[in-house]
This record gives sequence, C-alpha cells and structure tokens, in this order.
Amino acid sequence: MNKICVLLFDDFETLDAFGPVQVFGRMNDRYTLRYVSFEGGIKVSRQGARIETEAIDDIALFDILLVPGGMGTRELIRNVAFIRKLREVAQKAANVLTVCTGSALLAKTGLLDGKDATSNKMAWDWVISTNAQVNWQSSARWSISEKYYTASGISAGIDMALGFVADHHGVSTAEAVAREIEYIWNRNPDTDPFAVEKE
Amino acid sequence: MNKICVLLFDDFETLDAFGPVQVFGRMNDRYTLRYVSFEGGIKVSRQGARIETEAIDDIALFDILLVPGGMGTRELIRNVAFIRKLREVAQKAANVLTVCTGSALLAKTGLLDGKDATSNKMAWDWVISTNAQVNWQSSARWSISEKYYTASGISAGIDMALGFVADHHGVSTAEAVAREIEYIWNRNPDTDPFAVEKE
Repeated sequence: MNKICVLLFDDFETLDAFGPVQVFGRMNDRYTLRYVSFEGGIKVSRQGARIETEAIDDIALFDILLVPGGMGTRELIRNVAFIRKLREVAQKAANVLTVCTGSALLAKTGLLDGKDATSNKMAWDWVISTNAQVNWQSSARWSISEKYYTASGISAGIDMALGFVADHHGVSTAEAVAREIEYIWNRNPDTDPFAVEKE
Repeated sequence: MNKICVLLFDDFETLDAFGPVQVFGRMNDRYTLRYVSFEGGIKVSRQGARIETEAIDDIALFDILLVPGGMGTRELIRNVAFIRKLREVAQKAANVLTVCTGSALLAKTGLLDGKDATSNKMAWDWVISTNAQVNWQSSARWSISEKYYTASGISAGIDMALGFVADHHGVSTAEAVAREIEYIWNRNPDTDPFAVEKE
C-alpha cells in the first residue's frame, strides 16, 4: 500500500489537491491518503473549504508527497522554514507530485535544479522567476523528471495523476479509473492547449 | 452576490463537490461559497478529507444548493428526516445543482418527478430504481429541467458548473473560467462518452 501525503496550507487552490485525490482515492487497494500540513490543524483553501490536517511529523513513513499550488504559495515561497521543511520531506518521498504553482515551492528547495518541470500557465512569469536553474517547460500538460511529476494549472493535476497511475500500474488501469470518475483523460503530457507562447 | 451552499455528508465523493466549487470559487465577484450540512460539524469524504461544515439552518438565505453524490447517498436515501429536510431547502433555493448520485437524493424528495435528470452512469441501475417518476436521461453529460441541473458522474460536475455559468453569464465568461483553471471544457451537455447503452 502506498501512502500519499497531501500537503495543505492556507490559500491552496482547491482542485489542485482534490483532483489528484479523486484519482488516487479511487484506487484504495493501492493508495491511502493522508491530509497533512507542517503544523497540523485546519487549513483553508482559496475557495473557503476548511480541511482538518495532521502534522506531517506525526506520520512516520510515506511514499508520495502531493503539493498543490494557489495564492498561498506567494507567501510561502519567502518562508525559509517552510521551504527547508519541504526540501526535507520531498527528499524522503519516493515520488513528489506538484500541481499548478506547487512546482514553484518545490523549485525553491533547489530539488528541481537542472530538471524539467512545468507549472500554471497563467502564473508563468512569476513561476519561472522563482528559480532560473529549472528547465521550465512552457508547453506541457505535465512534466516528469526522475521522481518528480509537475502538472500545469489546476485541472491538469487530474491528467497527471492518471499519467502517474499509467506509468506505475499500466494504461488500462488509468483508463479504468478515468472511466469510473467519468473523466475524459487528456493522456498526452505534451499536448497543452494552455501553453505559453514563446517570444 | 449569489450564495452557494455546498451540502456535505459523510462518504460524499470528493470531486463531486470540489469540481463545481473550483468553477464558482473562481468567480468570487459573483458567488460566495458556504460548506454546510444539516447538523454542522466535520464531514468526511469517501476519500478521507475531513471538512468543517456550518449547519445549514444557521444560513438565513442562499441562492444555490449544490448536492454531491457518493457512497453516502446509499444510506441517506433511506433517511426520512434527511430527505424531508433536503426537500425543504431545495424548494427554497433558486437553483439546485446535483452531481453524480446526488440526483438520487433529490429524486427521492419528489421534486424531480416528471422532469429530465441524469446521474452517474456507473451506478445507473440503482439510481433509476430510486424513483421511476423521473425522466432519467441515460445519455447526458448534464441535464437541465427548470431550476434543476443534474450532472453525470463525478467529473461531469465541472462541465455542468461551466454550463451553468454559460447559461447565466454567457459562454465567454464560462470559457474564461475554464481557461483560468486550465480545464478542457466538454461544453455540450448532450455529448456523453459514458452514456448507458439502452437495451
């Protein structure tokens, strides 16, 4: 059983977290989900949903770290203690998945230096300004580099989660989950209708 | 400003609620979101997310009621007090939106009798067995009848929410929200890749 920690913080974007949650939550024979934060307690999404979290240190071992984005990242990226802790837990995880501007937080740890990654296309200029050492992909629904999966904006997290399932359990498993949640999977990570046009 | 009450209960399907939430939450100049239940307190989604809710009676007036589905509906449909209360709040609302098996709960109130409605295609036989007076649509991404919008399974709620936005604020507004959340909108309610085949 793979344990997924969904890392929440105030002003996270709701679907960034709960899109992938819906995919992995459907595979409860393989994945368990824990909703965590660095401090524990209630975290409030940008859309006002109040979620109870466990302190991540209370969870001895986990396999996958899921990091959503959202307006909350704008403050957290300047929070040295948060970024240090993120680096520590991301290094421990077998896989780290980010959605939207979650990749900016991960980039700030330095763990994406020299690696391909993508992010929200509506916040592109800000994201790429946070770390010039990352090979930011301006046209990618999601991007994979070693253990890091980074999705484009918000709903792209659902496509990436299904891509992760396909990579680890086969395409037919991903297709079965997509069918169960009646989701029309955009299965090609390189097809990005929201790509940033290069100058 | 339109107030939306998102009605949560134990074992609701996470994306049923948070897909539409993501759409309406992006239009915070027009919509406010409240997370409610009939009793208040923490409600736990099928995927283990623990959400704080307000008691719906503490909210004097609201415009839109959003009812998710999920395994929790199987018990609630036999809960006479819940169905009576649902009927009361649904009658007060200007619009009622359901996702997935949320339409089975609404059907049980009798308010969908003689009206078109749809639901989760993976739970179809159970849904249509709950009320034979509804004109159940076996091929519909979402269905509209007077003030009632009913979506097909889980992720169809995102498409329906964008359809609701298009109906009330114009297609270009819906397209702008879809772009912001980098969502490839399936805009035709009659195109249903998960349709139940008729015998």
